[in-house]
Amino acid sequence: ESEVKAKAGGGAKFKTDDVSIKVGGRLMYDIDWFDDEAFTGNTGSGSDSELRRARIYVSGEFGNWEAKVQGDFKDDGDTALSDAYIQYNGWDDLELVLGKHKEPFGLEEQTSSKDITAIERTMITNALAPGKNYGASLGSFSDEFTWMVGLYDHGDEGGNIATGVTGRMTFAPVVTKNQVLHFGAGFRQSRLAGNEYGDADQRLEIHTADEKVGSSSIVGESITAYNFEVAYAAGPFHAQAEFFDAEVDGGFNADTDISGYYAQFGYVLTGESRPYSKGKFKRVSPKGENGAWEMFGRFSQYEPGSDEADAVTLGLNYYASKAVRVGVNYVMGDMTEGGVNKDGNAIAVRFQYVF
Amino acid sequence: ESEVKAKAGGGAKFKTDDVSIKVGGRLMYDIDWFDDEAFTGNTGSGSDSELRRARIYVSGEFGNWEAKVQGDFKDDGDTALSDAYIQYNGWDDLELVLGKHKEPFGLEEQTSSKDITAIERTMITNALAPGKNYGASLGSFSDEFTWMVGLYDHGDEGGNIATGVTGRMTFAPVVTKNQVLHFGAGFRQSRLAGNEYGDADQRLEIHTADEKVGSSSIVGESITAYNFEVAYAAGPFHAQAEFFDAEVDGGFNADTDISGYYAQFGYVLTGESRPYSKGKFKRVSPKGENGAWEMFGRFSQYEPGSDEADAVTLGLNYYASKAVRVGVNYVMGDMTEGGVNKDGNAIAVRFQYVF
Amino acid sequence: ESEVKAKAGGGAKFKTDDVSIKVGGRLMYDIDWFDDEAFTGNTGSGSDSELRRARIYVSGEFGNWEAKVQGDFKDDGDTALSDAYIQYNGWDDLELVLGKHKEPFGLEEQTSSKDITAIERTMITNALAPGKNYGASLGSFSDEFTWMVGLYDHGDEGGNIATGVTGRMTFAPVVTKNQVLHFGAGFRQSRLAGNEYGDADQRLEIHTADEKVGSSSIVGESITAYNFEVAYAAGPFHAQAEFFDAEVDGGFNADTDISGYYAQFGYVLTGESRPYSKGKFKRVSPKGENGAWEMFGRFSQYEPGSDEADAVTLGLNYYASKAVRVGVNYVMGDMTEGGVNKDGNAIAVRFQYVF
Repeated sequence: ESEVKAKAGGGAKFKTDDVSIKVGGRLMYDIDWFDDEAFTGNTGSGSDSELRRARIYVSGEFGNWEAKVQGDFKDDGDTALSDAYIQYNGWDDLELVLGKHKEPFGLEEQTSSKDITAIERTMITNALAPGKNYGASLGSFSDEFTWMVGLYDHGDEGGNIATGVTGRMTFAPVVTKNQVLHFGAGFRQSRLAGNEYGDADQRLEIHTADEKVGSSSIVGESITAYNFEVAYAAGPFHAQAEFFDAEVDGGFNADTDISGYYAQFGYVLTGESRPYSKGKFKRVSPKGENGAWEMFGRFSQYEPGSDEADAVTLGLNYYASKAVRVGVNYVMGDMTEGGVNKDGNAIAVRFQYVF
Repeated sequence: ESEVKAKAGGGAKFKTDDVSIKVGGRLMYDIDWFDDEAFTGNTGSGSDSELRRARIYVSGEFGNWEAKVQGDFKDDGDTALSDAYIQYNGWDDLELVLGKHKEPFGLEEQTSSKDITAIERTMITNALAPGKNYGASLGSFSDEFTWMVGLYDHGDEGGNIATGVTGRMTFAPVVTKNQVLHFGAGFRQSRLAGNEYGDADQRLEIHTADEKVGSSSIVGESITAYNFEVAYAAGPFHAQAEFFDAEVDGGFNADTDISGYYAQFGYVLTGESRPYSKGKFKRVSPKGENGAWEMFGRFSQYEPGSDEADAVTLGLNYYASKAVRVGVNYVMGDMTEGGVNKDGNAIAVRFQYVF
Repeated sequence: ESEVKAKAGGGAKFKTDDVSIKVGGRLMYDIDWFDDEAFTGNTGSGSDSELRRARIYVSGEFGNWEAKVQGDFKDDGDTALSDAYIQYNGWDDLELVLGKHKEPFGLEEQTSSKDITAIERTMITNALAPGKNYGASLGSFSDEFTWMVGLYDHGDEGGNIATGVTGRMTFAPVVTKNQVLHFGAGFRQSRLAGNEYGDADQRLEIHTADEKVGSSSIVGESITAYNFEVAYAAGPFHAQAEFFDAEVDGGFNADTDISGYYAQFGYVLTGESRPYSKGKFKRVSPKGENGAWEMFGRFSQYEPGSDEADAVTLGLNYYASKAVRVGVNYVMGDMTEGGVNKDGNAIAVRFQYVF
């Protein structure tokens, strides 16, 4: 009655009776080269290498309860808590999650960083998706229909919790082994309590770049955002797009609009499909011994206030196994900030290992 | 000859011949609401959510030697080393512990944070128990009688180690499955070397509260403290009390007295007993499939110098399993600081998962 | 087809088919006492206790790919990433390593901190070996011949990567169970980009000492270093020596020379040999139930610029098992800094546990 399993990309799991404990992690190492004003802020070129994510987790499952603690070791000596939550699965189809976990907003954001097609998520997703925070979520997940909604701690407002409400629902009218059609919508509202909305400042999808768009400070009382998702996959082909619109309520000052969208198309040259499950995609898993190859393109547009940026990414992924991925992205970026236009190009290489 | 075991609340253990390695951790997530001066420092209300503890450990045992490294991931990016010690068990009943480990002082302090009845330990325990530090301890633990004494590194004093000596002994004249009677006493002396004794400042047993009692700075050459413990448990009932007295030697300045006590009573509504072993208590382990329910009350008194504080806590614990606990505490606090009286009430909720 | 193994000093490994995941770590706790100017900077004495290393790692192997994430928990709340690399073994005898790993330079540096004979490495090794950095290495390792060369990220130079090139090759004309003769050579060149070369400042091989030699700042455009290694082991006897010479190119300013060497002799009193494999040594593994005893002596010389330091270390190691080591080192240090001579003595004790 004692079972042990090491699974590539799925951690080491040991199970006795109704208790199981898992240990795993992920490692992403990037090398980036870029030039010109959209990336360096000047006319020169730049380069950097970076450990993008180095995580170790322990998770457990006991009866209807599970929990996960995941540390994300940063290069500068800090350790972010990537996940630290307790989940209760005892109410039929409902899941209750408490602690630090990912807020439900956006298809690209819900897709794990291990599983996204490009090396980085888009500007608009990074600007508007709240990411991982402390709070409580309630949700339900089936093959065709998912929803989750939650209340989160977004900092301090005069000694009290500055709350955020976030929710997402998805519907997949077609979900077969060969074909997926997905629709989704999300909503969030967070108190800013007179603080700057710092997530509005975004790099052009190269994480080590020096330059950001949206440098004018956006301050407000609260932020309200909506998004719509559509995705389609058929055999080796997959496509997805998301549209976002947000308003920062300036209180006595003017409101500021933040909007954007992206569209992405991919094709797996070796014939595998991109897996889909319960409202999000997973990464390609190679069938043959020689791994899988995938090519993709993405157009991304982002407008924080009166600034504007867009990025075109062309990329190639090699999936050596469930555990290993090597990705190369070529990014052509363009931004207009305070009326000044800046552009530039970049190449990013990622080496990814999932324990 | 290779054995693996995942135990709820006891980590995942793998054993080959005479070597064993264990991986586990704990996660505690709290939400607190409080109002008035004893908690917020002003007449308003406050609230906060907090990851109180998120720990991952690896421990090993090889012959007579064991060791443990436990990291405590903090919210602000820091990682405290909760434990980092090597233990030698090769001398009959003696244990030698080297490295960072818990100093032997106080029943409530020796009881693991996973196992204490209330969400937080009392003010007087937090003020006087030295907690986990680097050093060397020698001890012996049997069912009826335990003692431990050690020498610790309490910082720097003119380029040398500022030493601390700490010791505790306990005696349990009654230890049956159904009944426990426990007595204990502790002693500590630490060099302060002219520094402030910061542990004297304590919150009223709500960890995210803004206000602390004991804000007048207590500076001295050394601190000497004593404590006495008494505990009794019979079937589902359990009670414990501790009395503390300490003196900060002011050197050329006046000495300062720090004293306090607490008394706690609990009753497990579902009939389980609170387990006791080798000088400390463990948490309730539910017998039935529906978990165990426990109610308790605690009165806590604390006097740092000329200030004074007390807190009454009423609480309810639900133990879903060995791994999961949910606790709700209602705290009524009161403090007199510099002659000014402040009071207030608070509610704290804890979600706890032990891997 | 699922296999689990806990190995003292070798972690807990679980394997299913062609996937394996390992969890392990190390813990080193030191207590140091020292006196006089070479260690304290004044004529007094000093002491300190320190958690020298507390590491937890997760590593994985899947087909030709492996990866390791190792966190090093520091006392001050920081966590250094000790290792974070992906390795590809699919090209015959070649290994490709990407991410944070140890640069190939110096026999003492390549030997793991778990396996070195003294408590600390020598001043000249710590001053010139680049240690663990981000980059890419290619190497080949056989019993008799090894080489590795790599390109590394040594910080920022005007927005671009300040690169380093490092390489090492070793040759062992004799490698039998009883006898080893080893030769090696290393080379490194790193961009300093006008920054100070901070590694030139070294303590006299006592890690908690206050005083360092080489306090005059050495600034330059780049550093170039060479080293030569020789080692011989026969039965319980082992010896090794290394010679280093480096030049910091001052650009428009004067160049600075950094040089040094050490020689070390050890003897295992209980008869075991010091293991050697693929260009580096491992620690002694006791054969009998009562552990192994080893004594050693080391002379170490270091000359950064016009300063000079030497240290004589006499030591005794007790290996209780593959997992446990206790070491005592007596260090006699001497330095001349800016024409002023300082000397002193120190005792260091280490307790080491390898999971």
